[in-house]
Amino acid sequence: MKKETPPPRTIGLITDFGLSDPYVGQMRAVLARKAPGCLVVDISHDVAPFNVAQAAFFLAASYEHFPADAVILAVVDPGVGTDRAIVGLEVDGRMLIAPDNGLLALAQKNAWAASIRAFDLSAAMDAPNRVSHTFHGRDVLAPLAAWLALGGKPGELGREIDPETLVSLPWSHPDIRPGRACGHVLHIDRFGNCVLNLEAGSLGVPTGLRLTVPAGGGLTYARTYGDMPEGGPGLLEGSQGFLELAVNQRSAAKQFGLSMGDAIELAWEA
Amino acid sequence: MKKETPPPRTIGLITDFGLSDPYVGQMRAVLARKAPGCLVVDISHDVAPFNVAQAAFFLAASYEHFPADAVILAVVDPGVGTDRAIVGLEVDGRMLIAPDNGLLALAQKNAWAASIRAFDLSAAMDAPNRVSHTFHGRDVLAPLAAWLALGGKPGELGREIDPETLVSLPWSHPDIRPGRACGHVLHIDRFGNCVLNLEAGSLGVPTGLRLTVPAGGGLTYARTYGDMPEGGPGLLEGSQGFLELAVNQRSAAKQFGLSMGDAIELAWEA
Amino acid sequence: MKKETPPPRTIGLITDFGLSDPYVGQMRAVLARKAPGCLVVDISHDVAPFNVAQAAFFLAASYEHFPADAVILAVVDPGVGTDRAIVGLEVDGRMLIAPDNGLLALAQKNAWAASIRAFDLSAAMDAPNRVSHTFHGRDVLAPLAAWLALGGKPGELGREIDPETLVSLPWSHPDIRPGRACGHVLHIDRFGNCVLNLEAGSLGVPTGLRLTVPAGGGLTYARTYGDMPEGGPGLLEGSQGFLELAVNQRSAAKQFGLSMGDAIELAWEA
Repeated sequence: MKKETPPPRTIGLITDFGLSDPYVGQMRAVLARKAPGCLVVDISHDVAPFNVAQAAFFLAASYEHFPADAVILAVVDPGVGTDRAIVGLEVDGRMLIAPDNGLLALAQKNAWAASIRAFDLSAAMDAPNRVSHTFHGRDVLAPLAAWLALGGKPGELGREIDPETLVSLPWSHPDIRPGRACGHVLHIDRFGNCVLNLEAGSLGVPTGLRLTVPAGGGLTYARTYGDMPEGGPGLLEGSQGFLELAVNQRSAAKQFGLSMGDAIELAWEA
Repeated sequence: MKKETPPPRTIGLITDFGLSDPYVGQMRAVLARKAPGCLVVDISHDVAPFNVAQAAFFLAASYEHFPADAVILAVVDPGVGTDRAIVGLEVDGRMLIAPDNGLLALAQKNAWAASIRAFDLSAAMDAPNRVSHTFHGRDVLAPLAAWLALGGKPGELGREIDPETLVSLPWSHPDIRPGRACGHVLHIDRFGNCVLNLEAGSLGVPTGLRLTVPAGGGLTYARTYGDMPEGGPGLLEGSQGFLELAVNQRSAAKQFGLSMGDAIELAWEA
Repeated sequence: MKKETPPPRTIGLITDFGLSDPYVGQMRAVLARKAPGCLVVDISHDVAPFNVAQAAFFLAASYEHFPADAVILAVVDPGVGTDRAIVGLEVDGRMLIAPDNGLLALAQKNAWAASIRAFDLSAAMDAPNRVSHTFHGRDVLAPLAAWLALGGKPGELGREIDPETLVSLPWSHPDIRPGRACGHVLHIDRFGNCVLNLEAGSLGVPTGLRLTVPAGGGLTYARTYGDMPEGGPGLLEGSQGFLELAVNQRSAAKQFGLSMGDAIELAWEA
């Protein structure tokens, strides 16, 4: 299956394996063995265990920063060893691969991609070599990523499928009306910034902005953290493509008592 | 000591240094300086401080996934700066190096290796350059790994020794009889899966399986997590070569109140 | 801006982003895209949020272990998006870049560097491509590091400035007199070792050593951890260039109730 060697491609990784156990290291060892010369870039291995939605957000927010021919592998896989499919999504040249459980859903809905193709790559599970039933990340998906990174064509391994048939996420879409927006907290980062499921720019530049659920009072609509008043909360266009609730050098999550998944409501002068 | 340059080799790392302090970064900086072009793969840096047995398990479970000529460095080193030896174990072409305190013991007992040779590499401590007394991982072992990865021959640096003379672990072997097995918890992973010191397959396919110490009731002998009943516990052949107590998408460690090192007993219909 | 390609350089990274969020992965993705072939080495991403002094210590203690032409990027950036400058410090061939907020202060005071030059590189913020207001680490500093790593000359991008004009740290210098030294805890590592702001060797080899603030009793002046009596505390020349309070295989921080920044006083026979 080896081709005339193209230059080595970058392989991105997202998992919920953590970095304490040797699991990620074993995946990277397999990649070193099967795709020598390829650069491996960790996006995050600290996805909350089994949290497909969080990994889907990390993937959708990150893939466009990779080289144009990167292969990105997402493994949050409660169904490992059962008959769930393995799928690939080619988004503008980058190849995203994952168990078919919703991990690709946000990247797939990505409105600004010029070209999206999907493939059923479950045939990768039929490899002749020893495959565990509990660690397909190492034994199936890493070898698949290596094969793709070395120039393997997804169409040679599996058939092209309709991207709309990929498993989707039970995704609650935001409700945006003049003067009011309801959404939820997509992610809380290390600094306590609360990423909302409201795309950057979707509210225009609101004045008289308030957080009404949970009751939170006035918010500065700010360009960056340093533009917010000391200790006062604000809403800004975050670096991940979504609006963020933030407090300069403090935790907005703590200040508003917010957790991942919580509902929020914003109001402003319409 | 430089040779006709062979292709760069992969260097694996296991330490108890954590990733918060700059220690691992300084080791990797030394590797970048002394072995440019070599790929460095972290297995884990989150071994519990001074826990040689845990690191020995991580090493034994991981080395075979690396390229056939990899150099793997394990540093859990409470005796740093004292007169403990530095040793190398060549297992089927891969070179494992570590302070001689038991870190290589599990890999050395590895039954399925075709060739095992050991070397006393303590001469690496005699380097002319500045060597700290408290961080041999950076100042002695990383340069040694770099030298080996660039093609250095262990026999040129130190004498070959009998692998049986390496420091061993106070390892309690499992007691397996018809219908009953006593062992202990080797490791608890991020998901709460309890890796036992019972090799995969060592019980056959038991029926009527129960956890009797600690009192735990029936266990499904399962192929993978998804095959276990919702919330019900099971025993399966884990990806690390050992049997694992697991609960589908929950923590077996919490459910049974198990910690690393705890004794367990399994019973089944003999 | 591309040159005759010199061999790829190593890029070091220090941030307070943690490894749970996808931020570091996005920075590395940008580096993979803009500086393919360059090796990226993480020093630490677990600097306490906004703790410029801790990152400055990590940087000063680590840069000299890198290859002689490395580019090292430090991002702890509470002022992101405001008009703080971006600066570069060339220390004996290695290029350190950071927001101008004190991150380079300890490396800059480094007494044993033969050559130190500083540059205002704020022009990197004028890039034509999309730049977020909240994540200059990914959108400004990583591309700048890539450009420098590929051979870009800092003098072509910004003007040389007097290193003394860089923002300094509110650094409390130790007070060392015959028989008495006052300082503070610079860093507490994973093992509970307390790194003091007293340079290694600055006390000579003291006899009758005691920790007087906080009240702590006698200390062994030891060469390495294993030379200290079991459970008894000691002072030693640590691997980071400073004296460390340590207890063999235990936490000195816990034993003395010390936290980062706490004042300490040592006394000995003058």
